[in-house]
Amino acid sequence: MKNKTLFISLTLFLLFAASFFALADEGMFLLDNLQKLDLPSKGLLIPVNDLWNPQDGGISSAVVSLGGCSASFVSPNGLIVTNHHCGYGAIQRNSTKEKNLLEEGFLARSLEEELPTFGTNVYVLQSFKNVTEQVRKGVKKKMSPKEKQAMIEKNINKIVQKAEEDKNVSARVASMNSGMWYVLYKSLRIKDVRLVYAPPQSIGKFGGDIDNFEWPRHTGDYSFLRAYVGPDGKPAAPSKDNVPYKPKKWLHVSTDGYADGDFTMVIGFPGHTSRYLSVSEFNYYRNFYFPWRLNMFKRYIALIEERMAENPDASIKLASWYASMMNSQKYTQGVYDGFKRTHLSDQKIAMQKEFVSFINSKKELREKYQDVLPQIDVLYKDYMTFAPKRYLYRWMRLASSVMGSAATIVKWSEEKQKKEIDREPGYSDNDIARRKERMKYSFRNFDAEMEKRALLLFFELAHELSDNQKIETIEKIAPGLTGKKRREVEKQFIDNMFANTTCTTLDGRLKLFDASQKELNKSNDAVIHFALSMEKEMKPLDEKAKTFDGEISELQPKYIEALMAWKGGSLYPDANGTKRLTFGYVKGYSPRDAVEYDDYTTTRGILEKYTGKDPFDSPQKLLQEIKVKDFGRFKDARTDKMHVNFLTTLDTTGGNSGSPVLNARGELIGLLFDGNYESIVADYIFDKPFTRSICVDIRYVLWLMQKIDGADNLLQEMGMN
Amino acid sequence: MKNKTLFISLTLFLLFAASFFALADEGMFLLDNLQKLDLPSKGLLIPVNDLWNPQDGGISSAVVSLGGCSASFVSPNGLIVTNHHCGYGAIQRNSTKEKNLLEEGFLARSLEEELPTFGTNVYVLQSFKNVTEQVRKGVKKKMSPKEKQAMIEKNINKIVQKAEEDKNVSARVASMNSGMWYVLYKSLRIKDVRLVYAPPQSIGKFGGDIDNFEWPRHTGDYSFLRAYVGPDGKPAAPSKDNVPYKPKKWLHVSTDGYADGDFTMVIGFPGHTSRYLSVSEFNYYRNFYFPWRLNMFKRYIALIEERMAENPDASIKLASWYASMMNSQKYTQGVYDGFKRTHLSDQKIAMQKEFVSFINSKKELREKYQDVLPQIDVLYKDYMTFAPKRYLYRWMRLASSVMGSAATIVKWSEEKQKKEIDREPGYSDNDIARRKERMKYSFRNFDAEMEKRALLLFFELAHELSDNQKIETIEKIAPGLTGKKRREVEKQFIDNMFANTTCTTLDGRLKLFDASQKELNKSNDAVIHFALSMEKEMKPLDEKAKTFDGEISELQPKYIEALMAWKGGSLYPDANGTKRLTFGYVKGYSPRDAVEYDDYTTTRGILEKYTGKDPFDSPQKLLQEIKVKDFGRFKDARTDKMHVNFLTTLDTTGGNSGSPVLNARGELIGLLFDGNYESIVADYIFDKPFTRSICVDIRYVLWLMQKIDGADNLLQEMGMN
Repeated sequence: MKNKTLFISLTLFLLFAASFFALADEGMFLLDNLQKLDLPSKGLLIPVNDLWNPQDGGISSAVVSLGGCSASFVSPNGLIVTNHHCGYGAIQRNSTKEKNLLEEGFLARSLEEELPTFGTNVYVLQSFKNVTEQVRKGVKKKMSPKEKQAMIEKNINKIVQKAEEDKNVSARVASMNSGMWYVLYKSLRIKDVRLVYAPPQSIGKFGGDIDNFEWPRHTGDYSFLRAYVGPDGKPAAPSKDNVPYKPKKWLHVSTDGYADGDFTMVIGFPGHTSRYLSVSEFNYYRNFYFPWRLNMFKRYIALIEERMAENPDASIKLASWYASMMNSQKYTQGVYDGFKRTHLSDQKIAMQKEFVSFINSKKELREKYQDVLPQIDVLYKDYMTFAPKRYLYRWMRLASSVMGSAATIVKWSEEKQKKEIDREPGYSDNDIARRKERMKYSFRNFDAEMEKRALLLFFELAHELSDNQKIETIEKIAPGLTGKKRREVEKQFIDNMFANTTCTTLDGRLKLFDASQKELNKSNDAVIHFALSMEKEMKPLDEKAKTFDGEISELQPKYIEALMAWKGGSLYPDANGTKRLTFGYVKGYSPRDAVEYDDYTTTRGILEKYTGKDPFDSPQKLLQEIKVKDFGRFKDARTDKMHVNFLTTLDTTGGNSGSPVLNARGELIGLLFDGNYESIVADYIFDKPFTRSICVDIRYVLWLMQKIDGADNLLQEMGMN
Repeated sequence: MKNKTLFISLTLFLLFAASFFALADEGMFLLDNLQKLDLPSKGLLIPVNDLWNPQDGGISSAVVSLGGCSASFVSPNGLIVTNHHCGYGAIQRNSTKEKNLLEEGFLARSLEEELPTFGTNVYVLQSFKNVTEQVRKGVKKKMSPKEKQAMIEKNINKIVQKAEEDKNVSARVASMNSGMWYVLYKSLRIKDVRLVYAPPQSIGKFGGDIDNFEWPRHTGDYSFLRAYVGPDGKPAAPSKDNVPYKPKKWLHVSTDGYADGDFTMVIGFPGHTSRYLSVSEFNYYRNFYFPWRLNMFKRYIALIEERMAENPDASIKLASWYASMMNSQKYTQGVYDGFKRTHLSDQKIAMQKEFVSFINSKKELREKYQDVLPQIDVLYKDYMTFAPKRYLYRWMRLASSVMGSAATIVKWSEEKQKKEIDREPGYSDNDIARRKERMKYSFRNFDAEMEKRALLLFFELAHELSDNQKIETIEKIAPGLTGKKRREVEKQFIDNMFANTTCTTLDGRLKLFDASQKELNKSNDAVIHFALSMEKEMKPLDEKAKTFDGEISELQPKYIEALMAWKGGSLYPDANGTKRLTFGYVKGYSPRDAVEYDDYTTTRGILEKYTGKDPFDSPQKLLQEIKVKDFGRFKDARTDKMHVNFLTTLDTTGGNSGSPVLNARGELIGLLFDGNYESIVADYIFDKPFTRSICVDIRYVLWLMQKIDGADNLLQEMGMN
């Protein structure tokens, strides 16, 4: 070997090719970074400038955020397309027992027929700029990490407040790569958003939870909204005087489809990834976080199922929470299985070893970075001594609204004594108003028996914490007892608590919300009593957690900086809800030996999966039309079939839902709506052979619009006539 | 249309193409029928005569029966290759706690090391001829169907007895197409068969029950035996003086492999198919037989699982029966799902309609056949009034050895009063001796508690029979009661029975076997008492069943004859355990939209499936060698991989297990060992797009022999050096 560095690089390349740092397909790129990617050589057929430029925004400015989902303008009249599951809330809020739009679907045949969404906002990105200097202003070396962190947060608040002086603007300062640099994003917030069109959920949610995260998929996961502004063109509260918003850019639809290997792009707002975890950080997830969740979900879900099976009323109340738990369990299992499949632990260890060698190879690197990883390790070792206990308490509050609201009531009784600006995050006057609203809404699904059983389970889980993490408030309920006997005493304890509290009623909760700390302290309410004890026990840990946050926030940017030095270039920042472009290719995969997945599904699969029962029900009209096969110009010319969904190697995650999938000419060919099961672990590692994004084919959407729903008005508006 | 018949044929072809009567891939052909198939045009590269001819037997004479399995000679020294699951019993009988050959595998490095199989026989077909005339001798028109049937059976017995005067010959008269014609098969019965080589079951049974009937598959399902004869070359009882049998023909092994679409053949002994059922017959299966079995298995298996979970000892005793029930359930579900997938009911109805039109189209056909289908229908309508009851009783005896042996004891006390020649089938002196042996063997797995619970379930199932089929003996246990109360009384009844019988002990059963009818009648044994009542109640139904058999046996040949007239040629007879050849092609399939199954699996899948736990355990040496990838000349030249199993469109069923898979030159390229899940229904309809046979690649076998087990002696003997 002539060159040792080259040798190491090659070895690493072989070790991690197509995984940790590979750039083909992997990467959620910031818009001002696209020129570096040499996209034309990757397959892009239009100038990179057309995707984004500071002058007219480029094609990417047609892509908007719904806050948690992505979407895009598809007409000059503010028509927006997104996923069905992104429009779900808006559809649900317009549904009644008599007219269930989720079941029936909805189509407005004119602007007048469009429905209010009651709370959906559209965020149109206007500008972004690096504000790192402002954010770090006043941060001094001699400050403690906690003080530095507080200063940074204060600066960020100032920047946001200033930007939001314009009432139409929604501002956010995003920390890139754990605080390496900071970017201020300013968006137009459009508050009058209306429901235009949605298929019935037997199309839009076909396959339901069973097909969730699965391929092959046959879901028509799309819906249409429209953005409205005041007659002056500026965002306005919902009003019948408002007029359709005129976006600067909207997407053009292509019915050309795709072939295996075709270049594609997604622009959207991916939520969260953790691709650069050091071994110490990763071990927290691998050794505690995911195994604990898996164990908890398994036992908790069994309890929910038992309760649902025995009581029809509880079954209805718990249905949505149950679905959410099932989804979380599947996600957790997916990450866990992915860790195993990718041998991520071994990869991390091997990679970090090479990384450390690199740091040690040069004096200036050594001096700058050699302490970073050991310090992170020390921090995480300490973190592990109290994080599990806190995390368990978090879930205990989620699993029992009685427990959750009591904890909030206790915390609020303390915070309300402070000036608003000094309160903990989440306790501003606005936050409290929202919490009360949520309380009212969620109380509808309250099932006391379920919460009692859940609490008993979390007591059990608390006993299973390691010796140094036991929760005293729980341990002292049945001291000295174990097993069945302890469970009996604890069950009695919980029954007593629920019999002697007003937290089991909505009125009771709301009244307690207004109580002072003094009043709570002398209250006889058993649940408040228990919550006071829990909060008191957790308080020192909350302080420890703040210190940990401050310290880790100081180390992480250094760690990423060193990683970048090692990789000899910039690393795309982990997803953080900011606008990104990712590119990839249409491609199937082989999930296991002798099994090949095509990169597209067809209407054949709908007939195969159809059972007549949710989630595999389908409108009869759809089944008939599929059999008639009159797919017209929406049929794929190569396969002579109607494509339903397709697969790409695009690098996406939660938040990308509803993103437009673009072809090499920047035209809309589909909507991203899910990832395959094997892609779940991509939040931690992009495992190229297995990671796929699932998209609905825009031609299937158009065909449904034409053939099933007669949405000719919209087809015309999109220029599809 | 110029020709109406052609038009109808074309319509039918379009309706049933690739299904009911399609001949490509479908068909289990008799050896003397091969010339009609024009095999060279289908892909055969050797003269058809080389496959079978009356002179030297041809290649097919290397294929032998093991009685329930197929196998083939692969050396001039009587070396036989078959499936691991076909050699299973022989391996098991040589296993001890100390030396478990199932787990360790076994290889004899010389003739001396070969092990006795304790009961495995090899049947080498010597000749076959049509004996229809002799079988029908003395059958008169004026006889009742029952009398005719009795005469036929008598004639068959005579023919067999005569043939078996030569003590080395095993003879059988097979009824073709429900008695259209009869063929006498004479085979050499070789009684000294030894175990030569078997891989550990972690290879030979890799995937176990989970992978049973599934693709993709990775099972090394093979074992080697050797046939021995006396020094005079004639079959002899096992003895150390015996010498290896010299077969006339043995198969030559090819390591050339196959490509997608390659011509292949299987020669073997398929057990049973029912491809030509009329609508009335089919309805019996679709409306009663399979739904009843599905319901019964679901509830019965739940009971077994409950029992196994609560008692470790019972768990061991029930393991094998449980596996068998799971397999039966999967088979039953597979047929049931297949009926639905193929819309077989609709197909049958449409086809029969066309068939009836054909019969009605010509006077001579009408006169000859028009009554056949209506008569079959009448018979089956009557059959349905008592068949369910009898079938339930059959399963009751299977599910409880206490009940089963009591029923046999009662029946035998009656039969033993007759001359041997007049007794019912199954009650000859030899049969009784065998029954006693089986009783001893099976008693080891007796679990009284399980049998009590099973009986209670079958009482429940009896109550669910339609009103006209209620079993009086059971109904009168708790007259007037229903639900829980009835169950309690019946449980008490069963407990009492089991407390007051000697049928729960082996000694007791064997003693009762020797009791006279008179002694039984006055016995106080509660189970015998119950069995006497059941047998008495069933007796008239047994007589009805005999009449039904006689009548249906007279109609069925006519029905098939008419079918043949309709199809304008001969129909291959349903499988009946006689030697057949089937040909097809190497081919994958698409089980559902967007999923493609390759036609071969590779060692990659073993690594993927490996869990370290049965049934996905693998020898460490195998895992290592797979990673080393030193597959040498056994690697597939086209894919550059080691193939493990492969798929063909060959038409096979139970009994074909162990059959050699031959290439277009008649060389051995694999062993057939299973069908895919979708092929299960092929016992009723050959659904071409989905029906596949699963074969182990002979190159995987050879590689294991060379690399893992060092079976060079056998490789050399097979000419592989």
